[in-house]
Amino acid sequence: MTMNNGAGARRKPPTIHDVAREAGVSRGTVSRVLNGGHYVSPSAQEAVNAAIRRTGYVVNRHARSLITGRSDSVGFLLTEPQERFFEDPNFNVLLRGCTQALAAHDIPLLLMLAGTEDERRRITRYITAGHVDGVLLVSSHSGDPIASELREAGVPLVACGKPIGIGSKVSYVAADDRDGARDMVRHLLAQGRRRIGVVTGPLDTPGGVERLAGYKEVLAEAEVAYDERLVVSGDYSRASGEAGAARLLERAPDLDAVFVASDLMAQGVLTTLRRADRRVPEDVAVGGFDDSPAATAATPSLTTIRQPWDRISSEMVRVLLAQIGGEDPAAVILPTELVKREST
Amino acid sequence: MTMNNGAGARRKPPTIHDVAREAGVSRGTVSRVLNGGHYVSPSAQEAVNAAIRRTGYVVNRHARSLITGRSDSVGFLLTEPQERFFEDPNFNVLLRGCTQALAAHDIPLLLMLAGTEDERRRITRYITAGHVDGVLLVSSHSGDPIASELREAGVPLVACGKPIGIGSKVSYVAADDRDGARDMVRHLLAQGRRRIGVVTGPLDTPGGVERLAGYKEVLAEAEVAYDERLVVSGDYSRASGEAGAARLLERAPDLDAVFVASDLMAQGVLTTLRRADRRVPEDVAVGGFDDSPAATAATPSLTTIRQPWDRISSEMVRVLLAQIGGEDPAAVILPTELVKREST
Repeated sequence: MTMNNGAGARRKPPTIHDVAREAGVSRGTVSRVLNGGHYVSPSAQEAVNAAIRRTGYVVNRHARSLITGRSDSVGFLLTEPQERFFEDPNFNVLLRGCTQALAAHDIPLLLMLAGTEDERRRITRYITAGHVDGVLLVSSHSGDPIASELREAGVPLVACGKPIGIGSKVSYVAADDRDGARDMVRHLLAQGRRRIGVVTGPLDTPGGVERLAGYKEVLAEAEVAYDERLVVSGDYSRASGEAGAARLLERAPDLDAVFVASDLMAQGVLTTLRRADRRVPEDVAVGGFDDSPAATAATPSLTTIRQPWDRISSEMVRVLLAQIGGEDPAAVILPTELVKREST
Repeated sequence: MTMNNGAGARRKPPTIHDVAREAGVSRGTVSRVLNGGHYVSPSAQEAVNAAIRRTGYVVNRHARSLITGRSDSVGFLLTEPQERFFEDPNFNVLLRGCTQALAAHDIPLLLMLAGTEDERRRITRYITAGHVDGVLLVSSHSGDPIASELREAGVPLVACGKPIGIGSKVSYVAADDRDGARDMVRHLLAQGRRRIGVVTGPLDTPGGVERLAGYKEVLAEAEVAYDERLVVSGDYSRASGEAGAARLLERAPDLDAVFVASDLMAQGVLTTLRRADRRVPEDVAVGGFDDSPAATAATPSLTTIRQPWDRISSEMVRVLLAQIGGEDPAAVILPTELVKREST
């Protein structure tokens, strides 16, 4: 495969040789990194990526696509209703991260919103016709057949979060949901809370299942009795957080904390607590999940579990490009971190 | 051209014959409507579109694309920073309208965000490689060369709002900005306001220029002296509305009304007035523009000028499909409407 410097660039654009020299590796290593990173050590990969950033090197994708027959583009497929895309700041953050990670490879990202069955059918047809080389899939509902369909059609695919029911045949990148939940519930216990409610995510999503599992584990560890009146489920929307907190207050008026499986739902929980004249954190401590912009926008600001969005998006892009280059699927699990703010 | 019923549908899906019978027109007329509406009267077009909705008819695009060599897809290209896309509810409304109008033709929509020069270069390359048949362009800044580039590459294109400096060679669909501004300023005058400030949009956009022109015309008509201290410019963001109102209060403390060129900026204006202890509408009346979800979300709710978003998006799609079918460019101007709420 031939690599050229960008044809449209001005005044001696950096070449692959400049990148190799800057990184202190061979030209072949740079080429392997650009084609997905097979047989390249993590440290060499990191050095090459840093050199690409420093030199401003841009792959001549157009020349490549003439050779490879590829579209040299990647789809970002969100199988959620359009409204959720605009409401939930996680998507904005994830989309920006993926766009930036692809930009280093000069690959454009096509955004595909497919919230209905008809939209999924149309988009699947478009994708399988070869208009994109691979798909970054943001869809965690287990009922969604699109991951299996794309996999069967041989489309390189990386999911954000573990797709339920497909197992390790589909690549995915996920934060360690269970461990994050454990950290939050331990934090609430450490503050003396004992009547800790939980608003879970949808229980057909890994985030829904795993964060609830972490909650239960830590209560068991601490020998705090599990009380199912303290468990309600939401759908990650703000409205479902509001409704969930109202049900918790009704079923367990002695509630002294709530662990909420997303920051956006936690905003809804804060609204309900305010209406019910419960002070946060004095009467009820509230812990979120995500560390999305919703966490800092909330009043009081939310103690939450940080998902490493930058790494999630850059790993999704890395794994996808590797797969487009011929590598087998892989799962990547990344650690989370407790971020303490005003709500606990 | 052959039209078939949807191959993947179940239990006798409606055919083009069913649509023709329902609409009371010939099969040929339905076919012409589906291919862009050449040589079809507006009333027949309307009848066919209504019949498509009632019968649930879906064009078999896959069979078509094998014949035509087209991708049978359309791009929605937004040349704004990603942040603005998430902040401004107009984009959500417009995107939903375009998605729905294309769905009636079973055409998927690809969303392309290109806020930087590099992103525009990559996306232009993708588009001109033939991965979409045409582009719905949401970009009104006159400095943006992408409309000219796509036009020169022969890509069918319809802009939302008149592209400045290209004239009628590019199709566009726009609300009558000047007339809408006139209605709003007349309404403020009718309420006895005489010190009417204005926060314009960017003055390299038609919405910026035309809404300011309408403001000036009505003041001249009413023989109210034009005072340049009452004129500030924003960039359609909420923050620029906040800053604009602060400048207006400083330069013209006797301000008794503000006409704001977008609802989102008007939200910012309300924030500044609240901080300055000016009551709305008692001390200062505020009029917006768009009738976006930001207008009803504001406190007090905004009197505004309704842009007919549903018609704008359906006309954009109609004109684009006509052009893909071989028709020449066209401009469509649609009337606006004053919507009275609490802020005036």
